[in-house]
Amino acid sequence: MTSSERIEGALEAAVARSGAAGAPPRLAAAIRHSVFSGGARVRPLLCLAVADACGDDTPELAEAAAAAIELLHCASLVHDDLPCFDNAATRRGKPSTHAAFGQPLAVLAGDALIVMAFETLAIAGAAAPLRLPTLMATMTWGVGMPSGIVAGQAWESEPFTPLEPYHRAKTGALFVAATMAGAVAAGEDPEPWVALGERLGAAYQVADDLLDALSNPEECGKPTGSDSFLRRPSAVAELGVKGAVARLESLVASAIEAVPECDGAEALRNLVWMQAKRLTPKQLARTAAA
Amino acid sequence: MTSSERIEGALEAAVARSGAAGAPPRLAAAIRHSVFSGGARVRPLLCLAVADACGDDTPELAEAAAAAIELLHCASLVHDDLPCFDNAATRRGKPSTHAAFGQPLAVLAGDALIVMAFETLAIAGAAAPLRLPTLMATMTWGVGMPSGIVAGQAWESEPFTPLEPYHRAKTGALFVAATMAGAVAAGEDPEPWVALGERLGAAYQVADDLLDALSNPEECGKPTGSDSFLRRPSAVAELGVKGAVARLESLVASAIEAVPECDGAEALRNLVWMQAKRLTPKQLARTAAA
Repeated sequence: MTSSERIEGALEAAVARSGAAGAPPRLAAAIRHSVFSGGARVRPLLCLAVADACGDDTPELAEAAAAAIELLHCASLVHDDLPCFDNAATRRGKPSTHAAFGQPLAVLAGDALIVMAFETLAIAGAAAPLRLPTLMATMTWGVGMPSGIVAGQAWESEPFTPLEPYHRAKTGALFVAATMAGAVAAGEDPEPWVALGERLGAAYQVADDLLDALSNPEECGKPTGSDSFLRRPSAVAELGVKGAVARLESLVASAIEAVPECDGAEALRNLVWMQAKRLTPKQLARTAAA
Repeated sequence: MTSSERIEGALEAAVARSGAAGAPPRLAAAIRHSVFSGGARVRPLLCLAVADACGDDTPELAEAAAAAIELLHCASLVHDDLPCFDNAATRRGKPSTHAAFGQPLAVLAGDALIVMAFETLAIAGAAAPLRLPTLMATMTWGVGMPSGIVAGQAWESEPFTPLEPYHRAKTGALFVAATMAGAVAAGEDPEPWVALGERLGAAYQVADDLLDALSNPEECGKPTGSDSFLRRPSAVAELGVKGAVARLESLVASAIEAVPECDGAEALRNLVWMQAKRLTPKQLARTAAA
């Protein structure tokens, strides 16, 4: 089974549980819409890749960790798209959850997705309960307060938004949680995996800023230009396009350097490189190639 | 230390962690406002009381379970008060979280509170990891899909809302989670404790319907008459006031009967009775006494 198949299988199991007999059908549909609308699954692939590199001795726990990371990511997208935040009508080229199901069910779908992440960990954690407290703490660190993705989103509601803590929380934290969770799920010390997550998260944030500044909505699958419109801090605003591209390249290189020595290190470096190539906006790649 | 002191201590520890150095200050303030604005702590008191009745051999885990239940309850109140649901400007006689901090921070405070609940379990769970999977599953069952409080709230967005599953999910599920979690935290089988939670949850829902139909906003601490205004199913609409009062009394009696035989049974029955006396709206009690 490929990593993608393992991830989709774990996500399908979680979504099927949430929509079991007795569930309110519209919320069940909103949850399915939120999880299965073409996400690239970057974070869970990273999580599984780290677990693989660490020996992956409890595959069901690694799959649960990867699925939990993606469910938390989906929750943040559903809530970030709400009218009180980005007011985005589309996401990945399809209607956002609130556009398709209304605000009440979008709020509840996000809530349910957070709960589903921990339910997924609880079920798989029964196979390796001694790893569960650290695995849960890794997730809650990446998603909650004071420095997870919820905190990152909250920085947009502060009178002053410091760029580095904002980006580290809004994007970096879940990448760090993904690499750490992969190691914990495989029974390894997560600390050596922090730097890889941090650098990939930072690279991904710069790529997202570039995409927002340069792409057209068709390519991006969501409304673009919103960072500038909403006056959010952005690497493009700070460094210009050329500077942001240089920073992206340097971050990817440093991420590859940050892969700890282990049996699976070479495979993981290749995977990071393959993923990184997808980060550059097509329009930018065309401009650079022209 | 009293049960109330144990609960407030565990909640304070969770809220302090969420507002640690580096946290976005306005979200930290919104979280504190959401947790400490005069809640009766009915569910965590019930959780601790069951843990006590079961011997409470790991007090820090019971306190974490009780705090987690209350954090999940607070999250649901913050989100239920949002303009897209009840649009309530007050809660417990104070401004609701969105009224005080705006919608974006109210959405994020609710999200953060859910995460804090599981973080609280993760930290205490390190002392008894073998109990953690079941304890987590109990919580996710009570709060998530297909039949927890999120599902209960979602029934209000369905074209048809069946009264019994709606009430069981919206109010009952977290009471059942509270009694089950108390038993699990103390290392006991949770099944014998399900009936107590179910009956107390049902009683509490009837009491809330009566309060909504009969009280004035000052007594209730939140806007009243909203069930009828929002055309939500209600025991008062279904049974009339007299019928609802009779149902409340019968549910409390059956809850007391449902306390399983154990060393702490008598103390728990007394506690349920004391709590139940608080359920009757004052105006109704005055009318009945007149």
